[in-house]
Amino acid sequence: MKQFSCPVEIDSNQIITLAHGSGGRLTRQLIEDVIKPALANVRLDPLEDAAILQQFEQTAVMTTDSYVISPIQFPGGDIGKLAICGTVNDLAMMGATPLYLSLGFILEEGLHIAELAAVVQSISQTAQAAGVAIVTGDTKVVEKGKGDKIFINTSGIGARENTCKIGTAEIRSGDKVIVSGDIGRHGVAVMAARDPQAFDTPVISDIACLNHVVTALIEEGIAIHCMRDLTRGGLATACIELAQSSALQFDLGETTIPVEEAVQSVCDVLGLDPLYIANEGRFVLIIPETCVERALAVFARFDNCKAAKVIGEVTEDKPGWATLRNAYGVSRKLDLLAGDQLPRIC
Amino acid sequence: MKQFSCPVEIDSNQIITLAHGSGGRLTRQLIEDVIKPALANVRLDPLEDAAILQQFEQTAVMTTDSYVISPIQFPGGDIGKLAICGTVNDLAMMGATPLYLSLGFILEEGLHIAELAAVVQSISQTAQAAGVAIVTGDTKVVEKGKGDKIFINTSGIGARENTCKIGTAEIRSGDKVIVSGDIGRHGVAVMAARDPQAFDTPVISDIACLNHVVTALIEEGIAIHCMRDLTRGGLATACIELAQSSALQFDLGETTIPVEEAVQSVCDVLGLDPLYIANEGRFVLIIPETCVERALAVFARFDNCKAAKVIGEVTEDKPGWATLRNAYGVSRKLDLLAGDQLPRIC
Repeated sequence: MKQFSCPVEIDSNQIITLAHGSGGRLTRQLIEDVIKPALANVRLDPLEDAAILQQFEQTAVMTTDSYVISPIQFPGGDIGKLAICGTVNDLAMMGATPLYLSLGFILEEGLHIAELAAVVQSISQTAQAAGVAIVTGDTKVVEKGKGDKIFINTSGIGARENTCKIGTAEIRSGDKVIVSGDIGRHGVAVMAARDPQAFDTPVISDIACLNHVVTALIEEGIAIHCMRDLTRGGLATACIELAQSSALQFDLGETTIPVEEAVQSVCDVLGLDPLYIANEGRFVLIIPETCVERALAVFARFDNCKAAKVIGEVTEDKPGWATLRNAYGVSRKLDLLAGDQLPRIC
Repeated sequence: MKQFSCPVEIDSNQIITLAHGSGGRLTRQLIEDVIKPALANVRLDPLEDAAILQQFEQTAVMTTDSYVISPIQFPGGDIGKLAICGTVNDLAMMGATPLYLSLGFILEEGLHIAELAAVVQSISQTAQAAGVAIVTGDTKVVEKGKGDKIFINTSGIGARENTCKIGTAEIRSGDKVIVSGDIGRHGVAVMAARDPQAFDTPVISDIACLNHVVTALIEEGIAIHCMRDLTRGGLATACIELAQSSALQFDLGETTIPVEEAVQSVCDVLGLDPLYIANEGRFVLIIPETCVERALAVFARFDNCKAAKVIGEVTEDKPGWATLRNAYGVSRKLDLLAGDQLPRIC
């Protein structure tokens, strides 16, 4: 179990009981001892039914995601870090500055409280680094065998310029498609964590909050048409969805898409396609060709975006299609997979 | 299973599979066929990473709750209605007008899609009646035996007057405590639904959205100091928390607290205390004595608030205590229960 600093001594034998979800004395104690000290801020602290935020002169933006990843710890992060990054990134992708997050736990009876405390600590650190505050929360407990350790929901509120139009409706024929780094690491890292004896791989999840690099792109004056983070379904699914929403073609060059050798080799062994594998700190940026050079210069300033590359362009040839052109110039259509290569990856 | 109108024919044998949570083709199909048609609105429809809301000249207020009630249908409602009412009520209790809700599903593999569709229909009807829009959502699926049919998270955003101060800090010695109706029905109705052969009771949950009565109280000019809905832990827990937060005494009169005969008789048989039983459509209102008459006149206009009564007052005698005075004038301290009388009630 990960080391963490916790405001109270937690006996390693202490476990979550149904009474911790009752709303009574044990719920209060769990919140006061384990959750509140790590997340304290002026909006959360009153612990009222709802948190008082602010007026928004800019446009408020809202998102939600539930996280059911298994296992809850993996190389590069845990479900707590994931729950912050995932929701922060959804706001950032719309050009919004993430500000406030809610935090809902569904805990399984029998969970070690020390495991929960480690997750709360990770939430605290990730939220602080991203510059967001947890302002309101909720904790429920279900019987052993009716959940799986920890499920988390985070919903988020951000603010974006009233004139900002970033979204699929802004994508134009001729735009370039940039990916912010190498793909497939999160899915492979989680899979390896599920069966560490079967997989001896150095792959670490790409999990990261993307709001700071997005802010830098906006401040640089890049004319961002659209962004999309590459989560469940990976790069291929994101590009297919963008092609369908915009009724344009996303024409990708296979050899230009960065994939780490260790990721590719795991995929080769298992017959998986890295294009469809989940990422948690990667996104595609759709911008006019004239902005490409400056955008790449911004990416180069961020450690986790140094591998950013132009991987394709938007055309009107085949509306609604995402296509992949191989080294020999042969192009094929990318289709949505029916289901998952790897379930419960986020 | 409840009857519902669904935009597409759903074969009663169709079940949720892990692939429905993949982010791929089956996820898309589930959203397009079952979820989106029932909830359609201008902010949800683009299905981007986040929903564009609005500017807030008033103060934005945020809340979150996860719902894990078992069974998912009970006399008077289901988990869908609960997920809307619970979150709407948390906003209303702060004096905010509820506007936008997010909707996160965690589904168990093997769930009948028709059951999900019925819940979505209930969400749609309840949201419409409350005047709120579902603007963003998320669907995850966990393996059979790692969840329990349907868990829901709803987070909510509302707006309140910038000058509004409703909250525990406004409670004053001398204030009167009004309960909006008879207590204990939700908990008893859910318990009976768990074992219908053991309990033959006509009790129906009090579940209801409270935002319209709160708006009426505000429009009437009632000087609302504080409100709290009586969910997990019931009336007693709510009053104890308010007493502790305000560092004042909540002195309640046992004979003034309305409890339906059918609820009391179930409690008597099982040795439960209706004061601690969950409600989902009841709240306490803390106001100056001078406003009591007008407040009761407002309550009388709402079908589910006709039993509203003054049940006690706030004093400075025993700071942080909630006390209950019986018919003989004997007063005792109310304590938080360690755990639940009835787990998974919401």
